[in-house]
Amino acid sequence: MTRLHPIRLGMVGGAPGGFMGDVHRMAQRMTGRFMLAAGALSSDPQRAVTAGTMLGLPPDRSYADWRDMAAREAARPDGIQVVSIVTPNYLHLPVARAFMDHGITVICDKPLSADPAEAEAFARDIPDPDARFIVTYTYSGYAMVRHARHLVASGALGRIRMIQVEYPQDWMALPSSGNLGWRQDIRLGGAGGCLGDIGTHALHLAEFTSGLECRQVSALLTRIDENAAVPDSAQLLLRFADNATGGMWVSQVAAGCGNALCIRIYGEKAALGWQQEYPDQLSFTPLGKATQILERGSTDVSEPVFVPRGHPEGYVSAFARLYDDAANLLTNQPAPLLPRFSAGLRGMRFIEAALQSSRNNGQWHDIRVG
Amino acid sequence: MTRLHPIRLGMVGGAPGGFMGDVHRMAQRMTGRFMLAAGALSSDPQRAVTAGTMLGLPPDRSYADWRDMAAREAARPDGIQVVSIVTPNYLHLPVARAFMDHGITVICDKPLSADPAEAEAFARDIPDPDARFIVTYTYSGYAMVRHARHLVASGALGRIRMIQVEYPQDWMALPSSGNLGWRQDIRLGGAGGCLGDIGTHALHLAEFTSGLECRQVSALLTRIDENAAVPDSAQLLLRFADNATGGMWVSQVAAGCGNALCIRIYGEKAALGWQQEYPDQLSFTPLGKATQILERGSTDVSEPVFVPRGHPEGYVSAFARLYDDAANLLTNQPAPLLPRFSAGLRGMRFIEAALQSSRNNGQWHDIRVG
Amino acid sequence: MTRLHPIRLGMVGGAPGGFMGDVHRMAQRMTGRFMLAAGALSSDPQRAVTAGTMLGLPPDRSYADWRDMAAREAARPDGIQVVSIVTPNYLHLPVARAFMDHGITVICDKPLSADPAEAEAFARDIPDPDARFIVTYTYSGYAMVRHARHLVASGALGRIRMIQVEYPQDWMALPSSGNLGWRQDIRLGGAGGCLGDIGTHALHLAEFTSGLECRQVSALLTRIDENAAVPDSAQLLLRFADNATGGMWVSQVAAGCGNALCIRIYGEKAALGWQQEYPDQLSFTPLGKATQILERGSTDVSEPVFVPRGHPEGYVSAFARLYDDAANLLTNQPAPLLPRFSAGLRGMRFIEAALQSSRNNGQWHDIRVG
Amino acid sequence: MTRLHPIRLGMVGGAPGGFMGDVHRMAQRMTGRFMLAAGALSSDPQRAVTAGTMLGLPPDRSYADWRDMAAREAARPDGIQVVSIVTPNYLHLPVARAFMDHGITVICDKPLSADPAEAEAFARDIPDPDARFIVTYTYSGYAMVRHARHLVASGALGRIRMIQVEYPQDWMALPSSGNLGWRQDIRLGGAGGCLGDIGTHALHLAEFTSGLECRQVSALLTRIDENAAVPDSAQLLLRFADNATGGMWVSQVAAGCGNALCIRIYGEKAALGWQQEYPDQLSFTPLGKATQILERGSTDVSEPVFVPRGHPEGYVSAFARLYDDAANLLTNQPAPLLPRFSAGLRGMRFIEAALQSSRNNGQWHDIRVG
Repeated sequence: MTRLHPIRLGMVGGAPGGFMGDVHRMAQRMTGRFMLAAGALSSDPQRAVTAGTMLGLPPDRSYADWRDMAAREAARPDGIQVVSIVTPNYLHLPVARAFMDHGITVICDKPLSADPAEAEAFARDIPDPDARFIVTYTYSGYAMVRHARHLVASGALGRIRMIQVEYPQDWMALPSSGNLGWRQDIRLGGAGGCLGDIGTHALHLAEFTSGLECRQVSALLTRIDENAAVPDSAQLLLRFADNATGGMWVSQVAAGCGNALCIRIYGEKAALGWQQEYPDQLSFTPLGKATQILERGSTDVSEPVFVPRGHPEGYVSAFARLYDDAANLLTNQPAPLLPRFSAGLRGMRFIEAALQSSRNNGQWHDIRVG
Repeated sequence: MTRLHPIRLGMVGGAPGGFMGDVHRMAQRMTGRFMLAAGALSSDPQRAVTAGTMLGLPPDRSYADWRDMAAREAARPDGIQVVSIVTPNYLHLPVARAFMDHGITVICDKPLSADPAEAEAFARDIPDPDARFIVTYTYSGYAMVRHARHLVASGALGRIRMIQVEYPQDWMALPSSGNLGWRQDIRLGGAGGCLGDIGTHALHLAEFTSGLECRQVSALLTRIDENAAVPDSAQLLLRFADNATGGMWVSQVAAGCGNALCIRIYGEKAALGWQQEYPDQLSFTPLGKATQILERGSTDVSEPVFVPRGHPEGYVSAFARLYDDAANLLTNQPAPLLPRFSAGLRGMRFIEAALQSSRNNGQWHDIRVG
Repeated sequence: MTRLHPIRLGMVGGAPGGFMGDVHRMAQRMTGRFMLAAGALSSDPQRAVTAGTMLGLPPDRSYADWRDMAAREAARPDGIQVVSIVTPNYLHLPVARAFMDHGITVICDKPLSADPAEAEAFARDIPDPDARFIVTYTYSGYAMVRHARHLVASGALGRIRMIQVEYPQDWMALPSSGNLGWRQDIRLGGAGGCLGDIGTHALHLAEFTSGLECRQVSALLTRIDENAAVPDSAQLLLRFADNATGGMWVSQVAAGCGNALCIRIYGEKAALGWQQEYPDQLSFTPLGKATQILERGSTDVSEPVFVPRGHPEGYVSAFARLYDDAANLLTNQPAPLLPRFSAGLRGMRFIEAALQSSRNNGQWHDIRVG
Repeated sequence: MTRLHPIRLGMVGGAPGGFMGDVHRMAQRMTGRFMLAAGALSSDPQRAVTAGTMLGLPPDRSYADWRDMAAREAARPDGIQVVSIVTPNYLHLPVARAFMDHGITVICDKPLSADPAEAEAFARDIPDPDARFIVTYTYSGYAMVRHARHLVASGALGRIRMIQVEYPQDWMALPSSGNLGWRQDIRLGGAGGCLGDIGTHALHLAEFTSGLECRQVSALLTRIDENAAVPDSAQLLLRFADNATGGMWVSQVAAGCGNALCIRIYGEKAALGWQQEYPDQLSFTPLGKATQILERGSTDVSEPVFVPRGHPEGYVSAFARLYDDAANLLTNQPAPLLPRFSAGLRGMRFIEAALQSSRNNGQWHDIRVG
């Protein structure tokens, strides 16, 4: 069902039935440009084999160990060209390093790592990681997020003054959330908690759409459960380049919020707003004029679409746009909007600055650069 | 990338680049349960071959003629098990008949036919067509449409009193709509115009969710372009079983409407509302109480999902739910919500009654039954 | 608290505590241009006196009988200049006639009468009734309804093609609605039921904003309670001047609907939409362009306001705009948008045509003119 | 047009044609419980006289000087019982003191003063100022804001965790805003700028609805115009009692924002949300359940109304609820929700803490208590 000469892809983690693994595969299939050819789909060797069978992998390409997979796939003439890493945070960079050492391109979930120092070391060790390391900041794959970026870049908003970004969820407060596993272990998930899980998405969305780098952060991190290892909520003030200011709120315990990422950008000439749960619309208000509701697929919006205006796209299509870009990258076509390693590294440094500000009475802390 | 033992599927019509063919394939791939194995993808033989190549079909299974395809696929041990028909309306039933004669199940776009008499003849000729003939009333594949049906069936609304359904679009009024081709030829597209294109969807949505059969219709059909062969807009009054009444409005020239199908059902105990452009939400109002916004993926709503609450599904996922049901049907599992031939036939009879009422000064006309 | 030289106003009906009487008074006071000077506030003489005391009327100007009030006020040098009639429908025209006979201008609730023949007789008997008879089609007093009319009149929508208007409520289905009193007596309230209560508002809104006269109607009238005297719901098709078509739905038993009057008008060049429950916004969509959300008080919208943009006006302010216009009329200033007797008469004729169509199998019936 | 024995009221400032003076009068009239009996309506003596004439004041009670007005009204047997102060900020407390010294109750706009020290001195000097000093925190007069407070107080949200409050406007960025006058003079308007104008409303809304006192603030104040005397925008983090946290954003230069005050409160058991521009609705989401849209006037909501559900109230009605409460206070009836001097003083202290935090690198500053 795939197109001629599909790209051979492997996965580490992401056994069927888990949210992210399934989403990766639906997005790969939506593009029609990839073929799942190999996998180390679970850290549990038996579960890895079963998962490979369910997904139709040949037995000899369903691996119990990702190091083994990297070595053996690299040795095959029909070995994978790219690997998707869908593991707990602490494994992201070790797995990425193993495959990149064998020349295999990496598609990796955020945040980059559970450990800021590990991310910095990776940046020092690996030459030009952006060329071969893709980070799945999913929301930058929505058509109207890309159009928002286009509007700002085109000057339609004028100089940017304020950026308000939010990412509230409620799933961690629900009885169904159960044991949070590696998310509650600083070594496995990182000390940032909600900042790693969703705050990095919010930061990337703000920087991607506004085109402005966030420079400083003042933060207040909190947790409902006093025994919890990591924060579940954060209130932040932001200073961006060009003297723009911002506010960010993220929470994983805000009743009624499904996945309510949203952003509003206010410039001297106009403002825009976008909500992830209604992704096909983008509000645009020229100063002193009526708000316009821009729609994906309309003649005003040039971003390519999977289905026409009025036929809602969704989360999987945003993911698929990233995979489509990845296919472009792997076939030597342009993929200028595809988030790379450096965007992931900014996320790690943002977490670090926020943790420090929260510990230091809310004082502004710089986000490390360079 | 598909699961073990995927179902072998063929397509008639639907060359890449067209809206519906691409949607069918994205939906097939989203389920992971089908393998595109053969096709007669265009009525232009050269275009059919090129399309087959683009989609990775083996050359000997990319056919220039659908009759040929039906015969030869039926003769292969690895021949297709099911065929998707994505052609202009007048070909739906001839193609369906050819494949069903060879024992191959059919998935067919609506309306059934350009000619009501042809549909009635098919119903007489083919024994138990519902067993092997699926109609892609896409919108019944949305999770919250299914939940709406569930709410009504559970008695949550009490006796149904009023059903308001609308399906306005504007694409035919846009300069970009260009030549409407077979849609403006009564022989190829049917005399119903907008009623065939979208009115049948509206009728099925109303009957599917309410569980009530529409019995009579009073209609006013209009066209902006006086030289047009078929109506582009229709205003209708409806009488349903159990003395429920309704209003329906469909138009393909209503400025600002993308694909704005929506329905509201009012019962003695409660009401509900759903809009296709915001498909993950369903409003539910018990009489005298606050309106509730029910969400796909929430604990209140048991319908299975592709992605969790807060991560929007979209049009392709609705289509994929139909394909998932079709895969169930083909593997002898239950598929009770899957629209079949008889639902398609109701659409044809609805068009016929509306045409007659409009010609007869708006008098009520019965929708044929039996 | 009123301005210099306030207009002296009387009321018939509308004792404090009833919805409409209180609204009339709040609207009068909001303008600051009227002084309540006399009243026959209840058909119950004792209640009339108590009501007058509560409202601060001098005892000699709180009348037990409206005929008496008309005669005595006309005889006073400081007698009322205008009377507001807030009675059951069957009294509207007798009261109006009594005051107009004494040269006192009338502000009257809709519908004009319980009896179409009485309205026609009034039209024949009273010379130029429009000069001195105002009908409180409240919704034409909203700033954005007036702006909608302005947009259509300015040609911004081009030729009008379709008009969809709805007016659902649910209060009659609520246990709290209790005894419906005169509304369930054809002689006192009229045979139109919901058409008189709210359908006439919907018709006026459609004609006022579109500038098109409704010419024909096809209707289906229903009632939930089979013992009820009058319909509680109606589904209607409409034919307007210039070949525009329309759909109308009104109901007083639609769960979840407070006072959900709304209208959408589709023209060849653009469309607009307005909802009474969110009255400060008006959507406007040029064909093929983004929908614009026009706001009361913005620089795009010239209609005068009571409070600035972003500070919601409400129902009372719409009513107050009518009273402000009435004050203009009474002080010989222009009041071109103020609904007059003839608009009320159209409502009566609309009810009559709808009743006939519903009795005659949905056939189209003309709305009487001239 | 007022009820028997209306309360005699005076105004200082608020000549006709200005926003706030007109709103005060419309609100007074909407209640029907006040009579405008005296005024010093402008600091310009000639304008004061003209304004008095326009409003129908007797010449001898239209004063050129508010000190004179206080003394002479206090000496009259029919002198005013209450005075509304609608002046630039720097005059609020001197005027209030003059009238309170004569035993006349005060209704005063926020913020209390341009000078925190003046407010503290007033608090020290005047015994029990809450008994006779009302502050028009308008938004606490909306029915659904009061219902929000009721829901929180009833325990429906459980322990409060997070409070997100915003108040963006854009009028100061519009060309029409012109000369900002006293707002740009620290001595006349105060150093807080947008915090005085609108931030104090946001703080009161947060404390009024949540029932929690805000204890600490971390702030970033900014201005677009570098020559401006006072900030036009502010990003703030908040710490409330009981370990609740919050975020606040206020701006007067945010394109597209009319008067977009809104609040969301997240508790352990449920959340609620309210937007000033759609004031009749309140969203309420029990954790893990569907969001409910509560409506003013519905059976779920006991707050008294001016007009029934579905008939929008507006800004003036919120103001009128405060005046209705004030009338209760002046007639020795309960008025527990009416904002008093101490709520105004909290606003002054909040501004002061925010200014200090912004100067001190975003460090948390306590809001003064006691």
